[in-house]
Amino acid sequence: MSFPQPHPFDPLRPEEILLTTKILKAALPGIPLRFKALDIQEPRKADVIPFIEAERTGAPFPRYPDRVVSVLFHRLDTRAFLKALVHVGNKSILSLKELPADLQGPADLDELIEIEEVCLKHPEVLKEVEKLKLPKGVTVCNDPWGYSTDDVKETRRLFQCYMYIVPLDHPQTNHYSLPCPFSPVFDALTKELVRIDQLALGPDHKTHETAQPWKPVKAVEYAHDLLDTPVRNDLKPYIVQQPEGPSFSINSGQQVDWQKWKFRVGFNTRDGLVLYNVTYDNRNVFYRLSMSEMTVPYGDPRKPYHRKQAFDVGDVGLGVTCNQLSLGCDCLGHIKYFNGYRSDSKGNPVELKNVICLHEQDAGILHKHTNYRNNQATVVRNRQLVVQMICTVSNYEYVFAWIFDQAGGIEFEVRATGILSTTPIENANGETVPWATNVGPGVAAPYHQHIFSLRIDPAIDGFNNTVVYEDSVPIPLDTGVEDPYSVGYVSQTTVLERAGHAEVDVDKARVFKIRNDSIINKVSNRPVAYKIQTLPSQRMLAGPQSFNARRAQFAEHPVWVTRYRDDELYAAGEFTWQSQESQGVEKWAAREDNVKDSDLVFWHTFSLTHNPRPEDFPVMPIEKISVHMKPSGFFEKNPALDVPPSSQSANKSTLHADKGDDCCGSRL
Amino acid sequence: MSFPQPHPFDPLRPEEILLTTKILKAALPGIPLRFKALDIQEPRKADVIPFIEAERTGAPFPRYPDRVVSVLFHRLDTRAFLKALVHVGNKSILSLKELPADLQGPADLDELIEIEEVCLKHPEVLKEVEKLKLPKGVTVCNDPWGYSTDDVKETRRLFQCYMYIVPLDHPQTNHYSLPCPFSPVFDALTKELVRIDQLALGPDHKTHETAQPWKPVKAVEYAHDLLDTPVRNDLKPYIVQQPEGPSFSINSGQQVDWQKWKFRVGFNTRDGLVLYNVTYDNRNVFYRLSMSEMTVPYGDPRKPYHRKQAFDVGDVGLGVTCNQLSLGCDCLGHIKYFNGYRSDSKGNPVELKNVICLHEQDAGILHKHTNYRNNQATVVRNRQLVVQMICTVSNYEYVFAWIFDQAGGIEFEVRATGILSTTPIENANGETVPWATNVGPGVAAPYHQHIFSLRIDPAIDGFNNTVVYEDSVPIPLDTGVEDPYSVGYVSQTTVLERAGHAEVDVDKARVFKIRNDSIINKVSNRPVAYKIQTLPSQRMLAGPQSFNARRAQFAEHPVWVTRYRDDELYAAGEFTWQSQESQGVEKWAAREDNVKDSDLVFWHTFSLTHNPRPEDFPVMPIEKISVHMKPSGFFEKNPALDVPPSSQSANKSTLHADKGDDCCGSRL
Repeated sequence: MSFPQPHPFDPLRPEEILLTTKILKAALPGIPLRFKALDIQEPRKADVIPFIEAERTGAPFPRYPDRVVSVLFHRLDTRAFLKALVHVGNKSILSLKELPADLQGPADLDELIEIEEVCLKHPEVLKEVEKLKLPKGVTVCNDPWGYSTDDVKETRRLFQCYMYIVPLDHPQTNHYSLPCPFSPVFDALTKELVRIDQLALGPDHKTHETAQPWKPVKAVEYAHDLLDTPVRNDLKPYIVQQPEGPSFSINSGQQVDWQKWKFRVGFNTRDGLVLYNVTYDNRNVFYRLSMSEMTVPYGDPRKPYHRKQAFDVGDVGLGVTCNQLSLGCDCLGHIKYFNGYRSDSKGNPVELKNVICLHEQDAGILHKHTNYRNNQATVVRNRQLVVQMICTVSNYEYVFAWIFDQAGGIEFEVRATGILSTTPIENANGETVPWATNVGPGVAAPYHQHIFSLRIDPAIDGFNNTVVYEDSVPIPLDTGVEDPYSVGYVSQTTVLERAGHAEVDVDKARVFKIRNDSIINKVSNRPVAYKIQTLPSQRMLAGPQSFNARRAQFAEHPVWVTRYRDDELYAAGEFTWQSQESQGVEKWAAREDNVKDSDLVFWHTFSLTHNPRPEDFPVMPIEKISVHMKPSGFFEKNPALDVPPSSQSANKSTLHADKGDDCCGSRL
Repeated sequence: MSFPQPHPFDPLRPEEILLTTKILKAALPGIPLRFKALDIQEPRKADVIPFIEAERTGAPFPRYPDRVVSVLFHRLDTRAFLKALVHVGNKSILSLKELPADLQGPADLDELIEIEEVCLKHPEVLKEVEKLKLPKGVTVCNDPWGYSTDDVKETRRLFQCYMYIVPLDHPQTNHYSLPCPFSPVFDALTKELVRIDQLALGPDHKTHETAQPWKPVKAVEYAHDLLDTPVRNDLKPYIVQQPEGPSFSINSGQQVDWQKWKFRVGFNTRDGLVLYNVTYDNRNVFYRLSMSEMTVPYGDPRKPYHRKQAFDVGDVGLGVTCNQLSLGCDCLGHIKYFNGYRSDSKGNPVELKNVICLHEQDAGILHKHTNYRNNQATVVRNRQLVVQMICTVSNYEYVFAWIFDQAGGIEFEVRATGILSTTPIENANGETVPWATNVGPGVAAPYHQHIFSLRIDPAIDGFNNTVVYEDSVPIPLDTGVEDPYSVGYVSQTTVLERAGHAEVDVDKARVFKIRNDSIINKVSNRPVAYKIQTLPSQRMLAGPQSFNARRAQFAEHPVWVTRYRDDELYAAGEFTWQSQESQGVEKWAAREDNVKDSDLVFWHTFSLTHNPRPEDFPVMPIEKISVHMKPSGFFEKNPALDVPPSSQSANKSTLHADKGDDCCGSRL
């Protein structure tokens, strides 16, 4: 090979993209190909474990796992959709097959741009736009949405284009504030206009032809230079300085070492950021951590909105939508950026610069105790390491962050921001619809849910683990324990013996744990474990018979446990675009494999029911939710005791002196 | 008066303490008095509103509300417990009454020290300690606990002293690691030993006489200089610099101005930190915000542990237990400290320095949007203002913080840290009990709950408000709205017309809102409101017939709404020490007052069920929970749009350069 051997968890390299697409082009000579997605095929776990265990223990390395590239692409002659696996080491095609006609690959960036352009140039669309009689300088644009599914079995690859008025020639004018009352549908492969949907503008399904010219209203703008009011002038600079550099180090490209944690930063076009081989103090904790899928169903029952259901991982890919981050904008302090690569539709590598950032932050106090007898205190600050990506999925932004602490905890934090997906509404007299909030003149933001699936592939002191949940319950009568004052309570453990699902239970303070039953904590005398602090949240509101629910069955239960199998990575299945039914975790759980003391995967579904506020427009202050993973009897005592004490000599805080303040009312 | 007129919300001043106790001593000549608690009597709201409205609108000031000091004290001759209200303006006693014999005041610091000393010197206790045959240099200490309640009607004022072995002469040695197997009970007024309880050491209620000498084991220590292992040497300094100073200013002593927010920092010995008159952009938002009560019932059914139920607000007082904070230890950046005062038992003022701190922090991204067509991004950082107190209640620490953001949000954050309350256990062979976790040799940490009551006195654009909750539910059939694909959902509003309680409901994504129905948001066409993001959590596990439950009926429901009345401030009532039944929010709610469009109070009960991990010992990494209050149609759009953009020129971040990193495995 012409390039150094990558680590099994290393992301796809540009040379590998070129090599792979060259091999495929050579294998299908003369046939025009359109590449949709190239990624390293997740290496076989059975091959990787000996490798990473050799790294961990210092044993001699076994052979490198095969480096295989997975490719989704179209033949443009037959329009067939194909998947290939290419072994880049020996330059061979391991498999190449045409996929069934009802499977569709994700949108790719070239495709989105093509559809946008086709839509804006189509004569029928232009005729419709003409009816709006837009003033000079005012134009239109569109956001192509995945067509999703309803009861019409659809094998064409369709895009629903939601159109907006662009009020100004400014790169950040907010077109979402000015939605058009019609929406064209295009076939992505033929580029044909399928039809133009007229949009309902009131509380029922009634639509009208676009007859009236647009009544100009001002867009609600977010860009600083488009605001009516000046920016605040009383926000003083806040600078994070790390004069001795960061506490982390980056080794062999993707490996991060920080405060006894070690892990590898992975990246692919679908998951975006993936964490591999997470260890603490050289003990295995997690094999792989990722945001496996998410779906965003909307609560607007009117056509075509009933099909608004994004799968941001499966339909587009978090790696494709990652922001290229800028120093000083998205993080403070000392920042390490990681790059990635994707392939364009022609098979050429495209560099994705700064798509993942890594930095430290201070999160207040980690632990403190004051001996009240003598006021002697021990205080340790909560230094954290943040590994973050920010994804723009058309209107919305998601900030996904893995936050490591010094006490063995990991928090997976999701922030939702960006711009609400909007619909036109006739609200000149304050009319409302019951599934949306008016956010400006002529514009409403429908209610929707963000439903996430976090995939946790554990390795608690080894690769065979057991999932249990523990409920806090009053001492049961049948235990014979006397509790004369009705105050006693105990923890009741349920072991998940078989793959399946489980519920959260706030009333019982249910805690899920992933244990290693073959290793007993010497202090607690219970198996070593990590607890997963599941987030209690609402299930999907769409009915079980709806396509929304059938396409995202992972959303039906907050916890799923499956036996590990290679290639079972995505909660709604490999192909979500226009899917009719998910082929994901619910199918794998249904095997009811033994998952006790096994190589298992823990899937957590959690959601944000988002009924927009006017305050969420034109750009939304972050809404934050998170899931904590914490050691629970993994250590014999607080593992952060050895963190140095918080001290003024290191922290260099400054004291506020009240100027001219006489401690009594200045006006009085 | 010899001192300037304080603001109605200003905390008690030392001159007022001296004046008040002098007046009472003069009124009760020759009678020895013991002062337990002195505080400013909360001023009458009807008097305060005209005053703060004049401040807000710039209207002429009405007269100052009366400045009244509330005093709880004992006559040492009769041992009677009394309450007085003293008008410091005209130096008169407004009321002075002896309280019923079954009411008891909170513990005060002098009392705690006295009990500790009495216990350690008592010959019976010394005899018991003698049996342990402690090695040279090893001593004992004790934590006096409120005696609480069981079915014996107890009118004496009792303390249960939990005793520990002090292994070393070091100010921070961890005696909680070495609990003694016996516990003396003292009468606080007579200083008499009531009895010595022997503690059960196993899974049943059996106790033994202290017969065996202590088998020396090493305490699990937390102080840095007592650790077996060196501190981490790879944590690099992290310095927050604010070269132009902070973005806040402090005016007339206690008023804080920051980023359109204005509020007054209050302090009293019971609530500790209180926030008053919170406005945003000169609009009223909250009248008063406080941590009203908390209770910590333990799940250990064995005597005397069945009585372990702390009321940290009512039994001691958060203001009494506040840490005096140090620059650079508890916060980073530019810090403003506030002081407070308490009275000692003789009636002299004691300064409490630096009990409240205030500083800014950066909390990542507040909002971001990238126009994917041209990669132009708007990013605004989430600057926050933190107002914080840290309370040490014997073994435990609580960090209470009010966190203001620039988008109109307030987060009330509680962090639990400090040391677990422990019990002795015979666990030499790994024995466990089902209601506790072994955390070291001979020591277990029982399961317990922390149940908090947050008191929110709202003023959403005025002082008459309405509480509603909104559920997200599939479009109900009876609305006649067509939903052919079963995807539609709407928000269903329930107005709380009468005082009472309400439940949280995760399955419906229930959101509580406090609205002002007389002011309609021009954009949403719905009443202006703030939402309270209640925290779904477990109720008290102790049975309804238990004293734990009867003493803390606020813990029975997550939400209570009452009509405002002066003096109804504390969820479990004014007197919690050895109470048999609470006299708090449940009684006030039972009046079923009209609370629609009224001056109302919103009470939120939330909890942390804490089944300790070995990792929580010897000092616990913070466990964090919080409640968010967010504008929901209070503003017409995102109120933080005018926050300046995040920029490298202001933030001065630094870029990580990987040293000697060739992007491939260094070992490979």
